[in-house]
Amino acid sequence: MSGTAPTAAPVLPARGRLRPLGLDAVRVTGGFWAERQSINAAATLAHIEHWLDREGWIRNFDLAVRGDVSGQRRGREFSDSEVYKLLEAMAWEIGRTGDADLESRFRALVRRVVAAQEPDGYLNTNFGRPGQAPRWSDLEWGHELYCAGHLIQAAVARARTRPDADDGLVAAARRVADLVCETFGPDGVDGVCGHPEIEVALVELARTTGEERYLNQAALFVDRRGHGRLRDVEFGREYYQDDLPVRQATVLRGHAVRANYLAAGAVDVAVELKDASLLEAVCRQWETTVFRRTYVTGGQGSRHQDEAFGEDWVLPPDRAYSETCAGVGSVMLAWRLLLAEGDPRYADLIERTLFNVVSTSPAADGRSFFYTNTLHRREAGTRPDPDRPSQRAAASLRAPWFAVSCCPTNVARTLASLTAYVATADDAGLHLHQYLSGTVTHRLADGRDVGVSVATGYPHDGQIRVRVDGDADLPWSLSLRVPGWAIAGASLTVDGHTRPVGPGYVTEHRAWRRGDEVVLSLPMAPRFSYPDTRIDAVRGCVAVERGPLVYALESVDVPGGGSVDELRVDTSRPPRLAPDGRVTVRCARVRPAERGWPYRGDPAGVRPAAGELLDEVALVAYHAWANRGPSTMRVWLPTGPEVRGPAWEHTGC
Amino acid sequence: MSGTAPTAAPVLPARGRLRPLGLDAVRVTGGFWAERQSINAAATLAHIEHWLDREGWIRNFDLAVRGDVSGQRRGREFSDSEVYKLLEAMAWEIGRTGDADLESRFRALVRRVVAAQEPDGYLNTNFGRPGQAPRWSDLEWGHELYCAGHLIQAAVARARTRPDADDGLVAAARRVADLVCETFGPDGVDGVCGHPEIEVALVELARTTGEERYLNQAALFVDRRGHGRLRDVEFGREYYQDDLPVRQATVLRGHAVRANYLAAGAVDVAVELKDASLLEAVCRQWETTVFRRTYVTGGQGSRHQDEAFGEDWVLPPDRAYSETCAGVGSVMLAWRLLLAEGDPRYADLIERTLFNVVSTSPAADGRSFFYTNTLHRREAGTRPDPDRPSQRAAASLRAPWFAVSCCPTNVARTLASLTAYVATADDAGLHLHQYLSGTVTHRLADGRDVGVSVATGYPHDGQIRVRVDGDADLPWSLSLRVPGWAIAGASLTVDGHTRPVGPGYVTEHRAWRRGDEVVLSLPMAPRFSYPDTRIDAVRGCVAVERGPLVYALESVDVPGGGSVDELRVDTSRPPRLAPDGRVTVRCARVRPAERGWPYRGDPAGVRPAAGELLDEVALVAYHAWANRGPSTMRVWLPTGPEVRGPAWEHTGC
Repeated sequence: MSGTAPTAAPVLPARGRLRPLGLDAVRVTGGFWAERQSINAAATLAHIEHWLDREGWIRNFDLAVRGDVSGQRRGREFSDSEVYKLLEAMAWEIGRTGDADLESRFRALVRRVVAAQEPDGYLNTNFGRPGQAPRWSDLEWGHELYCAGHLIQAAVARARTRPDADDGLVAAARRVADLVCETFGPDGVDGVCGHPEIEVALVELARTTGEERYLNQAALFVDRRGHGRLRDVEFGREYYQDDLPVRQATVLRGHAVRANYLAAGAVDVAVELKDASLLEAVCRQWETTVFRRTYVTGGQGSRHQDEAFGEDWVLPPDRAYSETCAGVGSVMLAWRLLLAEGDPRYADLIERTLFNVVSTSPAADGRSFFYTNTLHRREAGTRPDPDRPSQRAAASLRAPWFAVSCCPTNVARTLASLTAYVATADDAGLHLHQYLSGTVTHRLADGRDVGVSVATGYPHDGQIRVRVDGDADLPWSLSLRVPGWAIAGASLTVDGHTRPVGPGYVTEHRAWRRGDEVVLSLPMAPRFSYPDTRIDAVRGCVAVERGPLVYALESVDVPGGGSVDELRVDTSRPPRLAPDGRVTVRCARVRPAERGWPYRGDPAGVRPAAGELLDEVALVAYHAWANRGPSTMRVWLPTGPEVRGPAWEHTGC
Repeated sequence: MSGTAPTAAPVLPARGRLRPLGLDAVRVTGGFWAERQSINAAATLAHIEHWLDREGWIRNFDLAVRGDVSGQRRGREFSDSEVYKLLEAMAWEIGRTGDADLESRFRALVRRVVAAQEPDGYLNTNFGRPGQAPRWSDLEWGHELYCAGHLIQAAVARARTRPDADDGLVAAARRVADLVCETFGPDGVDGVCGHPEIEVALVELARTTGEERYLNQAALFVDRRGHGRLRDVEFGREYYQDDLPVRQATVLRGHAVRANYLAAGAVDVAVELKDASLLEAVCRQWETTVFRRTYVTGGQGSRHQDEAFGEDWVLPPDRAYSETCAGVGSVMLAWRLLLAEGDPRYADLIERTLFNVVSTSPAADGRSFFYTNTLHRREAGTRPDPDRPSQRAAASLRAPWFAVSCCPTNVARTLASLTAYVATADDAGLHLHQYLSGTVTHRLADGRDVGVSVATGYPHDGQIRVRVDGDADLPWSLSLRVPGWAIAGASLTVDGHTRPVGPGYVTEHRAWRRGDEVVLSLPMAPRFSYPDTRIDAVRGCVAVERGPLVYALESVDVPGGGSVDELRVDTSRPPRLAPDGRVTVRCARVRPAERGWPYRGDPAGVRPAAGELLDEVALVAYHAWANRGPSTMRVWLPTGPEVRGPAWEHTGC
């Protein structure tokens, strides 16, 4: 669009309170996220490519070219999308590092994909050929527009990182988008896809190409949904958000990935078309969803049956679905809202979700994944076969691959583009939303180059040192986010002066000089978190958090062995940071009666035996659990018998 | 088998501690169950027949006869079984009342069914014809043996109520059973059905016909299961109990209906073959299931996704599945164990399940049904269309019919045969397990006819008057069950003398004279029940029970309107029986903060506002809820803030 190089970021709105900075502007040099990006690059991308190859999901494109895909095609109806999501992840990674080997693998994969495109632009290995169902014949379950969306997103990533590449991906995506507009335009098929995704993709393609019809088509899809165009199904039309128009809904509902993707697309449309009421509708839905339908980890979706949000306050830890992809979708949505509105709550949720959902999914080696992210594992289960895809989304340990394998590729593309979610700019200066060691550079509207270097051990350490890298004649603003969890105890040191700061953005506006330093200190004492009394499933329990990290009790850490379900935490003693860096709590071990009808008239009948006191029970950061073999685990720890619970429970006793 | 009339009962073991009495021996004259049997006869049977007709599930048999069922067949793969379960219900009802109109409808239906039987005995409208999948080609999901089992059970009901009927149903069922034995015998197909049911059916057919091969085939099916003969599926092989041999399992698991049906079949096989270790294995599984995997209502199954048992202690009230059919299956299993073992716990569970699951399913008019029986409804939802089958098992109100409509027919056959679960005999005399107004007659082994008349307002009233109807020269025993919930306060009055009695069977052995009266008084004060501390989902809550009935708070009874989720019950004041007969509790209404991240570091932050005291909040018997329009409902009531919870929660405060 402009003569300058595009911003290498997944979301580039035409307007909004904040402007995103891309992979080009934000560099990470070490720490928590640098490690994860390295593992993603060094292990996960190849791991995914291996499994896509092995499962035949790439070969489907070759078969389509040869004309014999029908009957031989492998994978589910949406397997093309995993190839596209790998392409997107590769594109970001190439943009980030310029890896030559990856570039050649990327090009080889693009060639195989693009070869399968039909003359009119149609590209999907599962429909439309002899022996296959006709194109667009199964909008409910066929995922054709969903797959098209992921292809477009891969192309957008490529266009923004290698705008001059001649691999043909962007052209192919444009032809797909053109066909979608022709087919589903105002005079075309009056339908929407069962799985939203095309909406965000079309808006981003419009932003990248300047082609307004893509935006209009996305707006049309958003407006069409919610009027019962899709068939009613066992789960109800809310499963695919076809129960209520986006503008009328008050909360996210149904399939949690679909709900977040659709809402993200609606924000994109609203921002581009200056549709304030649509934007406001999504803001309202987001708020209610976060207040009533979100786990302490940031995870969303409490139903296994339909991978869906539960009703308000239905947040069972043991049947948490909290799909990794829903976490990715939630980050996508919150980021768009943050850019539009500038409210720090959106960045708070992004932080929580990145640390406790997105980073929980991959194993330490980047070669196995959680699809669902339960908050309570009752039975240790068995180690998944490393050589077979898991049939089940809810494996007891991370699995190498899944029959439905959306999560590994979603993690990969998110980690490869992670630095695009760290910082933003506006006319006045820079804002840091997430903290990692690295650099941020930006050219202000007046042409001045500004930048900072960040040094921090976050999230393990609460000190964030921000050093100004360039001189400036005129003042500019540096804004730092104080997370919502830092209710008390955060401070900011500027120019040798320290002052307390509270949640939200703290902004310093001055004529910065090279070497000027701002230090944000966040309170890192471990803390108990008490659930709202309406969350029935965790009544009488507490969670332990430290900084942005949620902690868990894992059975391998239970002294003397035994079940995590036998411990009751003593809330009168705050959790401690032990000298070895571990977070510990004091617990009583209780041993209830082994047998008998479990509902008794006498409360004494359900009283556990007197507890054995365990003074320092170590917890594990939730994202790191299940890396030491099969285990049981709890995030929510019951309080009891030696223990003082939330004060209100004792009023009037 | 014998020259005398068969006992009109669904289960007739060759041996066991107790011998069942049938519909012929037990007559009900009024009260709770008499009403339900009348409604079942007057409304439900015709309602089911209407829907089976309307949905085309009966017509499938006609189409099969005409040779054009393929392509035109309607309903799911197991829809034949609903026709068979209606036939079974009709057969019991005809046996009970001799209704001539019903007899002619029964015969007409049998004619249409039997006409579709193929020359070799095969009878299933979904397989084996041109254009259909081959016979036995989908043992996992095809339900062929399951359907065969229900046909056989219908025939057994007929044989035991109208042994001389010439309608051809029994002959047809024998030919089906013969084909099953030929096909799946020791040298035949080495498989089992994904849905157990054929096992109980074959054993009962063996008991009725004396044909041992049916029993041996059932034993073979029981032994074959659990070795992974069925394919692994998303839910795991435990879904259809093919994960572990019955003899090795320690608890019921997987699909709750399948698990109960299989266990019932295993008991039947064990009893007939004197297989003590198999019987002991099922006893052990039952005990653990009841102690750890059963709702306070007796309901079983806490997972919507796979209609399955959860792991131990996973009993969420709001996502309770508690399928009506699982309740029926649980009654089937417990009844078999009661006959074999004579332990009153089995009769206790039957009582609890009949009053709180089986009788909860049908609406007061017998024309709509709950498929699932949740213990907590958070959103009132909408009234199902009375003119359309519900797509969803978990409707917010009872629905007239379902796409999968197993529950209405299961309720109908259970209610029609209900009096067969009331009383038993042994060489010494009679035992009453369930209480209703009516008569029980029996001829003792020595040829003496004995009998009693029971007069009671149970379950609303706790007095059960049992009058001896015949004289006897020699003494005989009359045993009455004191329910497990009657821990204190029960008494027995015999001959003017009253003495306290506790749970279990209380037996009076004497030379009874006509008019002798025994009065059992059960304590009917409403009571709180506290859950085992390991049931996370209801921590800090109490249930209210009265007699065998579980109570619920329904939103239509919340004073001034408002949500059931806003009330906190005061456990320091026991629930009361109000003068109008309603059960009431004292509650505080709390109004938590409307907005905000729901996990707070300060317990005060989650403290509800000071409560408004509501002194007499009326509850409704759980089985009667949802009869006053859409509503929300809770069985488990949170305690707080004015409230004393189980004592152990306060230790050390």
